[in-house]
Amino acid sequence: MITGKNYIGNQLSAKGSKTYKTFNPQLNIENDPVYTEATLEEIDEAVTLASNAFKIFRTVSGQQKAEFLNTIADEILDLDDELIKTYCSETGLPEGRAKGERGRTIGQLRSFAQFVAEGSWVDATIDTAQPDRKPMPKSDIRKMLIPLGPVVVFGASNFPLAYSTAGGDTAAALASGCPVIVKSHPMHAGTGELVASAIVKAAEKTNMPNGVFSNINSSGIEVGTHLVKHPRVKAIGFTGSIKGGRTLYDLAAQREEPIPVFAEMGSINPVVILPEALKNQNESLAKTYANSITLGTGQFCTNPGLILGIKNEALSNFIQNLADEIIQIEPSCMLHPNIIGAYQRKKQTAISQPHLSVVASYEADVQTNYAKQAITTVEGKTFLDNPALHQEVFGPFSMVVQCENANQLEQIISQLEGQLTGTVITEPYEASKYTDVISALQNRVGRIIYNGVPTGVEVCPSMVHGGPYPSSTDSRFTAVGIHSIKRWVRPFSYQDWPNELLPDELKNENPLEISRLVNNKQTSDKL
Amino acid sequence: MITGKNYIGNQLSAKGSKTYKTFNPQLNIENDPVYTEATLEEIDEAVTLASNAFKIFRTVSGQQKAEFLNTIADEILDLDDELIKTYCSETGLPEGRAKGERGRTIGQLRSFAQFVAEGSWVDATIDTAQPDRKPMPKSDIRKMLIPLGPVVVFGASNFPLAYSTAGGDTAAALASGCPVIVKSHPMHAGTGELVASAIVKAAEKTNMPNGVFSNINSSGIEVGTHLVKHPRVKAIGFTGSIKGGRTLYDLAAQREEPIPVFAEMGSINPVVILPEALKNQNESLAKTYANSITLGTGQFCTNPGLILGIKNEALSNFIQNLADEIIQIEPSCMLHPNIIGAYQRKKQTAISQPHLSVVASYEADVQTNYAKQAITTVEGKTFLDNPALHQEVFGPFSMVVQCENANQLEQIISQLEGQLTGTVITEPYEASKYTDVISALQNRVGRIIYNGVPTGVEVCPSMVHGGPYPSSTDSRFTAVGIHSIKRWVRPFSYQDWPNELLPDELKNENPLEISRLVNNKQTSDKL
Repeated sequence: MITGKNYIGNQLSAKGSKTYKTFNPQLNIENDPVYTEATLEEIDEAVTLASNAFKIFRTVSGQQKAEFLNTIADEILDLDDELIKTYCSETGLPEGRAKGERGRTIGQLRSFAQFVAEGSWVDATIDTAQPDRKPMPKSDIRKMLIPLGPVVVFGASNFPLAYSTAGGDTAAALASGCPVIVKSHPMHAGTGELVASAIVKAAEKTNMPNGVFSNINSSGIEVGTHLVKHPRVKAIGFTGSIKGGRTLYDLAAQREEPIPVFAEMGSINPVVILPEALKNQNESLAKTYANSITLGTGQFCTNPGLILGIKNEALSNFIQNLADEIIQIEPSCMLHPNIIGAYQRKKQTAISQPHLSVVASYEADVQTNYAKQAITTVEGKTFLDNPALHQEVFGPFSMVVQCENANQLEQIISQLEGQLTGTVITEPYEASKYTDVISALQNRVGRIIYNGVPTGVEVCPSMVHGGPYPSSTDSRFTAVGIHSIKRWVRPFSYQDWPNELLPDELKNENPLEISRLVNNKQTSDKL
Repeated sequence: MITGKNYIGNQLSAKGSKTYKTFNPQLNIENDPVYTEATLEEIDEAVTLASNAFKIFRTVSGQQKAEFLNTIADEILDLDDELIKTYCSETGLPEGRAKGERGRTIGQLRSFAQFVAEGSWVDATIDTAQPDRKPMPKSDIRKMLIPLGPVVVFGASNFPLAYSTAGGDTAAALASGCPVIVKSHPMHAGTGELVASAIVKAAEKTNMPNGVFSNINSSGIEVGTHLVKHPRVKAIGFTGSIKGGRTLYDLAAQREEPIPVFAEMGSINPVVILPEALKNQNESLAKTYANSITLGTGQFCTNPGLILGIKNEALSNFIQNLADEIIQIEPSCMLHPNIIGAYQRKKQTAISQPHLSVVASYEADVQTNYAKQAITTVEGKTFLDNPALHQEVFGPFSMVVQCENANQLEQIISQLEGQLTGTVITEPYEASKYTDVISALQNRVGRIIYNGVPTGVEVCPSMVHGGPYPSSTDSRFTAVGIHSIKRWVRPFSYQDWPNELLPDELKNENPLEISRLVNNKQTSDKL
């Protein structure tokens, strides 16, 4: 049952007077529940609870954290229809997508549970003492990863489950031993509260300290700003726009004690189509990319917003084929009036640039909040000379750049901002002739795809979701997959610490039977 | 032979007009060689060379990088007496220390060589395709760590070899595949140039691309500022003061494309002496700590600047014993007039704080540039109320805080800024009664020591040198040990990439025979 209140630790609370509602973009009406924005006092209370909970939570065993995470998954499933209906009413997305995203969220929670239950993730490293070493004896030193402290998570508008309240950032932070305070996304506050209730139930059932999780309602920027500046907050996770992410990054960097911010932000996901592939697969590529560009109304961070080819007849044909294909696709609903507003504005800015041709633009009437797809094209030099053309248009929109030659293609790629993904479409015998192009692309992205589409982010250990700025604020980490836990931890050394006082991960007898680097050898043996 | 010029890639260059000399603090005179500060043009040239070199260097094999690093070590040894004499003339440190530090530097280079030659450090992770998976087929995804790009290293004044030109930061960055531009420390410009010549020789001998290394002279802040702001620079390593490190951190965070800064900065390295240990080991502890506080004239980042005990007769005795011991130690030379000037100023500020007692202060005449040690003491409440007492006094100085009880001790520790180390002096049966105190200490430091001294940083995989801010700007990394390589790399995914185009680390046949995570199982087998 949705109350519209904040979770300050395990307690529902609504001391404030500022309220707001969510919006159903399919019906173009506000949803009924009224949400109360958290007061500064409530925020401070949540952070204090988190800071106190951290003292206990950071010592909780991997097994117990796994139980907590698995129970969250169970409780989310238990929300059943209410969750799915609320999700759909707040996003305009279909039930199938809601259930798919729930499945992914559950999968993430369970995979982190398994990961921390097994326990080797702490990278335990042991160098035993050498008391007789000359000229100086060597101490016994043992290292492992430990959690940073309370983490604030800002969820994504386009993934109300998988990248929000109990999404990847929260799952990774809780798995690491960090309490989490979620700054609830105002566009899906109901979905957020329901998931928060599942987390709180799970925390109570598995005896986690009060404050291990809070869910803070907010409709503007004040709540988020206050959270990022709070001295007891130790790290930030964010998924959203470059503007929003950079604002938080700047706030965190300006603190007396700067804290790490992992913001997953904008990306136009360049796709390079090499000439032979373009010649041989022209129509099927057009169909594939028309679908990828419009998938989920273009509301994926890996949406292909930029297609690069070398100017010739095949490229002209491809542009026409892509236009023909995309125009046949039925427009669909965007998440929120604000998002469709931004889409229309940015699309308009893009297509009004000089020396640009619009090759496809859906013109028929559509329902309110439905997005009309468009494809544009420019010459390589035009693209190089005009940074406005490099900006993301979040929605079903893409631009084809017709490069003069491979040199210009490489030059364009080298000058792109950092991207989540890059894709190369090629015949098998062709790629090796374009090593400079591919190498330049690698240098600008976090993931490179061979003959596929960038949409669809597999959750697995080998996935990198992140990349050079501004696709993320710290390319040294991924936001997806179990290794995303590394954003929230730091290495810690014990020197000459007695065995009985060491954490289990570092004890001589290796009670957890984890894999450790002992005197430079990886082993699960006891010492 | 020292020329006083910059190395812009492999070329000696001195286009500027601003010159400076180094200083011999033992003789209290300037050294002869004249160094020419780099011009903005020379800096740009070095960065452009580094950026171009990166295109090649990032694909160089682990074996070749190992050869490069080992050859640097050989060439440094080849500098022989000239290096040792220059080092001593620029630091006032004795020959034994110079040779010890050279040994450490050589050891670091060789251990990184071994690490990258073996190759498993890239954390290769492979998830193979599942074309028949429902509802969606699964792609083949493979991940490894790749270098970030050109790294700028600012060396430490107190470690002209081990944390400077070819020190830990440089060795780690080169090992990772990042070209390095060293902002030479003006106080040991000669030592820096000699080591730079060894690196350049090694680069030429092992066919590394020109620009893989540059050494930039500078006497003020302009050169460093220009380097940090340069768009082609991708990461910063720094060892030095909080003020200097924070300035670079802020500059890097304010860039259009922010870049990571790992700055290892100030620390007062709290030492907690528990009551039973204090009672039983009073005199030996006083002797041990008098030595640790004055080791290297107190010029170590792990110098114990703060000793915490619970107020009683034993603590009073310890303070007196420590005072008696330290006053007998012969004062020694500091690195530079600037450093002794800062020491005298900060010591004066510290001892002029209200409600503070000076219990030891060396008063006899000493040679110019020699530091006079001092010990002070305050009550717990005085310390809590006055942040000026929490400041580092870099040199042979320490403060003993007499806490009311264990609660106040815990409170003081919780309110400390982040530290590189924390030490607990305890009887074996005693520590378990102070878990809250120890837990609070853990939360403020990167390394915790049991019954020892914080000085002496072992170079080994389990070492953490770094910690919560301001001891470092990013506690998620260490500055010492092979894992410090992780500061300069990012994960990168290949999706459905053909085997023959993958780097060796990710190929099916595992030609490097490295350990990889394949479908969630760690193995060195081929696929």
